Amino acid sequence: MTGPLAGIRILDLTRILAGPFATMVLADLGAEVIKVENPILGDDSRAYGPFIRGESVYFMSLNRNKKGITLDLHNPKGKQILRELARVSDVLVENFRPGTMEKLDLGYDSLKRINPKLIYASCSGFGCTGPYSKKPAYDITIQAMGGIMSLTGEPGGRPLRVGTSIGDIVAGLFTVIGILSAIRARERTGRGQKIDVSMLDCQVAILENAIARYFTAGEVPGPLGTRHPSITPFQQFRSKDNYIVIAAGNQALWTRLCRALGKPELLEDLRFKDNNLRTENQPELERIIEDITVKKTTREWIDMLESEGIPCAPVNTIAEIVKDPQILARNMLAEVTHPVAGRIIMPNLPIKLSDTPGGGQRPAPLHGEHTEDILSELLGLSTQEIEHMKTDNAI
Amino acid sequence: MTGPLAGIRILDLTRILAGPFATMVLADLGAEVIKVENPILGDDSRAYGPFIRGESVYFMSLNRNKKGITLDLHNPKGKQILRELARVSDVLVENFRPGTMEKLDLGYDSLKRINPKLIYASCSGFGCTGPYSKKPAYDITIQAMGGIMSLTGEPGGRPLRVGTSIGDIVAGLFTVIGILSAIRARERTGRGQKIDVSMLDCQVAILENAIARYFTAGEVPGPLGTRHPSITPFQQFRSKDNYIVIAAGNQALWTRLCRALGKPELLEDLRFKDNNLRTENQPELERIIEDITVKKTTREWIDMLESEGIPCAPVNTIAEIVKDPQILARNMLAEVTHPVAGRIIMPNLPIKLSDTPGGGQRPAPLHGEHTEDILSELLGLSTQEIEHMKTDNAI
Repeated sequence: MTGPLAGIRILDLTRILAGPFATMVLADLGAEVIKVENPILGDDSRAYGPFIRGESVYFMSLNRNKKGITLDLHNPKGKQILRELARVSDVLVENFRPGTMEKLDLGYDSLKRINPKLIYASCSGFGCTGPYSKKPAYDITIQAMGGIMSLTGEPGGRPLRVGTSIGDIVAGLFTVIGILSAIRARERTGRGQKIDVSMLDCQVAILENAIARYFTAGEVPGPLGTRHPSITPFQQFRSKDNYIVIAAGNQALWTRLCRALGKPELLEDLRFKDNNLRTENQPELERIIEDITVKKTTREWIDMLESEGIPCAPVNTIAEIVKDPQILARNMLAEVTHPVAGRIIMPNLPIKLSDTPGGGQRPAPLHGEHTEDILSELLGLSTQEIEHMKTDNAI
Repeated sequence: MTGPLAGIRILDLTRILAGPFATMVLADLGAEVIKVENPILGDDSRAYGPFIRGESVYFMSLNRNKKGITLDLHNPKGKQILRELARVSDVLVENFRPGTMEKLDLGYDSLKRINPKLIYASCSGFGCTGPYSKKPAYDITIQAMGGIMSLTGEPGGRPLRVGTSIGDIVAGLFTVIGILSAIRARERTGRGQKIDVSMLDCQVAILENAIARYFTAGEVPGPLGTRHPSITPFQQFRSKDNYIVIAAGNQALWTRLCRALGKPELLEDLRFKDNNLRTENQPELERIIEDITVKKTTREWIDMLESEGIPCAPVNTIAEIVKDPQILARNMLAEVTHPVAGRIIMPNLPIKLSDTPGGGQRPAPLHGEHTEDILSELLGLSTQEIEHMKTDNAI
């Protein structure tokens, strides 16, 4: 199987989540990703539980399809190897705090002299410029500063964290887009360039029209629970055994919904005549609908509403997702066999390509698993030279 | 200024959010995006409020930098024009329900006969295959089915919606990655291909290690409010005037935090000795810390904790984000002047490229604004032929 990025070599200095997620997508798409880790501890996330036979599930589920080498970037020989690798790579990705690579004399300005075609991607909390550039950042601080928490929570309640690390993940996705765009630009210009992605910027970029709306209407949006700010009914309701999401996005669906609920009289109710009125009177409407939805199970409602063509959904937990027939039919659970941990199941690549499919197969590397292979095959080092590197603690 | 995707032509049949978000990113990066709309109503989102002088803020903030033409895809002449445009385009993107383009005889198999190099991207609720393929989907139903809602909410509380349309947006980002990968593959193979992205698959792909953890430990994760599942203290606390997020990710930061809070005795407390114990006893620790944080304002805490090197953040609303010095320094608010609505401010592209920068400048097209230009310049139609198209209601 050859993915669309076959032939692209990525030198991956990233750790924890945002960067490794980006390079995993690139690896899934067929790029050769060489993950560089510190010889002593490796990627911090190797220490994050849970573990299977000592191997971190967190690490393994973010680093499949990559090769792994160790290099001490503070060691002069380690630095030299990194420069040699940058010379023969298309892309370098790192998610250190801005300034770290420069201090090691491995910043973009230094590496582009060695390889002018190198694409250098930096993914950091706040970006390489601006007053916060050097501040530390974590997913939770970025979710807080970037506005998504202010929009998430119970109506009138406190801001809540999005339950996945969306601050990291969205930055990882924009980093991939930046890298692939720069690869395309290089086809035309012959030059590499630096890509600077900030987690905070990425959160601002996904605020939809909240910013334009704020400037237009002066409205500061807050959390709305499960409902939509301007479409009603378009939210979650309690059922007999759980919850049911109903999305009646237009007047025809509203009409069908009232009939399906056995409440045709709602169609005549002046409070709910059109979508604007329904949104204005959402709390009353929610109460009326929920009094009905609690009488049947989620499954019963789905069967009934789907037969009427009304968009609806169960609220799935992880236990339900891993058995869902659509997710299984789409091959969205990748089974990877790790030499130590054994069989692991993780989400697969969600991009299905007809001619050059990619996807997850190979396990994450053991710490330093491919160091000798890469030094000998890619850089032509002899067994003796590699032994010296080890003695010098460079690898 | 020329973005990295200059020279790439995208035929954009997308509507509402997921698809238009994807093609906006492509347009921001310099691709020529030709948005095709129905001659009568156009993109449904032109009807979504709020409005400025009749122009939808929702539409304008998702369609900048694009050209707009009208085409009736049910009209034989309209279909013919679409085929002509597909012949001279690199990429076609659509987010109809699977089967719609085939019914119009405009599916990938039909168009690739006209242009074997065409990259055809479909972004749909459930993808082009599998038992749910033809079901309708909205952001809220996908958030519900994909698991992110089951992880978002108050501890022990009901599942909540993420406050932005993350179901649409993440699918849009993966669609962009698929398109750019296929452009790269075409450089090697000379062939286009079909890209099939499902919103549901994309939600599964961003569940982090929740799936691997479920298979390892049998744990079904639920909502946790603002805290991290395995790092403590790493969450939001109340302050005198609002909230403060504190992220003490390791033992050294924990030590500094206890001192900064004036509670060095916590360092000796057996309940909080290490991160595992703090996570186990998180509710007690939260109470102890919050009793202190409520005594000062968020600003006071940030000044104090930052001076101690402890990662922390305010929980910003949109009103604060638009004044934030970092966001302004990064040029993350694009000012676009629309011919009817005037000046509009919206989030800018969060990918900063050193050699071929992109970004948001040109306003969204008026309905059909570039129809005549494109038909004459790109397809060489005469004024008379264009007039006939109008008479036939094809454009």
